[in-house]
Amino acid sequence: MILDKYDIDLLDKRYRATFINSLAGYRQVVLIGSQSDEGKMNLAIFNSLMHIGANPALWAVIFRPDTVQRDSLKNVLEQSFYTFNFVDAIDLEKAHQTSAKYESSVSEFEAVGYTPEYKQGFFAPFVKEAVVKIAMKFEQKIDIEINGTIMVIGSIQSIELNDSLIADDGFVSLHKANVLACSGLDAYYQPQFLTRLSYAKPDKWTNKI
Amino acid sequence: MILDKYDIDLLDKRYRATFINSLAGYRQVVLIGSQSDEGKMNLAIFNSLMHIGANPALWAVIFRPDTVQRDSLKNVLEQSFYTFNFVDAIDLEKAHQTSAKYESSVSEFEAVGYTPEYKQGFFAPFVKEAVVKIAMKFEQKIDIEINGTIMVIGSIQSIELNDSLIADDGFVSLHKANVLACSGLDAYYQPQFLTRLSYAKPDKWTNKI
Repeated sequence: MILDKYDIDLLDKRYRATFINSLAGYRQVVLIGSQSDEGKMNLAIFNSLMHIGANPALWAVIFRPDTVQRDSLKNVLEQSFYTFNFVDAIDLEKAHQTSAKYESSVSEFEAVGYTPEYKQGFFAPFVKEAVVKIAMKFEQKIDIEINGTIMVIGSIQSIELNDSLIADDGFVSLHKANVLACSGLDAYYQPQFLTRLSYAKPDKWTNKI
Repeated sequence: MILDKYDIDLLDKRYRATFINSLAGYRQVVLIGSQSDEGKMNLAIFNSLMHIGANPALWAVIFRPDTVQRDSLKNVLEQSFYTFNFVDAIDLEKAHQTSAKYESSVSEFEAVGYTPEYKQGFFAPFVKEAVVKIAMKFEQKIDIEINGTIMVIGSIQSIELNDSLIADDGFVSLHKANVLACSGLDAYYQPQFLTRLSYAKPDKWTNKI
């Protein structure tokens, strides 16, 4: 089927949100750990992690201020330090449950059953059970005026993962740690590794099909 | 192992690029089809598709101007119209080969063996073999000054996919069409569907673990 812009505009609002969000494809599941001025911990699931650059190491996420993510955004902007945590696919129900609209006074760590972990004097809590734990520092906020969303770019301060996941050239085999992926807001996936290919060169093949 | 910012800065440049890029996790593979003033077709693989919003339907990609992606960026900014194409995992070698640095005069469609498809009077070429074909219109360019990358936001003009992929609530089961995913710049995945979960509510469970 083909839908044009007019058809898309006419879709039911909720249907359209599910449709367009899931259509955007496969994405990494990341749990963002943060802490408020008052020391209240927060943990929330995001599907909008974006690699911005490796030198310096910069990653971004998109925030929608009118959702449950607002506590995370407030903490990130006020404290500048937060954590990215990748979790085992076996814990997908716990990860998903962090998206519930808990009161600000509730720690999602406690509510869903993840263990907060503080270390190396870093201000924000990690997920102890996570297979990849990354400490982030706020660098830049970009207001996307076209629809009011906010992109937050942070720099990587530290990375913790099992040595066995890292290949000789630096490639991280997340599939070996069973890392959870997703599509849209409620569908979960476990990617199956197919292959790695060498650097593509124009003379490698030409219309070999 | 734990690497701090100092350790990361000391990594070999190429190792660090592979490490940080693959560490950012699973992502959708998208082939961007575009066309120049002179009618030259271009097709290039991207791993930075980002859902910005559903109403209006907006998606972004990140461009690095110093790479092979520069032809795509030039076309998108000059012509305002481009296509997003998701392909079958069985064609991963063809998709990867579009990343080779062909001369601007070479059409990657022809070089790698995809068929360009024009339709509905839309200016830019689609990949005929793609299982999801999306027509895009340029909306906004955001210069990310922190490292010179460029985010391009576009609005969805039309969507073509098989009806059988769409669930009653609008969810798109990309796995039913064997859609290709990736990690980093050269690793390919085929995500295995696990489950969809219902909207999370605070009272659904509390620390049930």
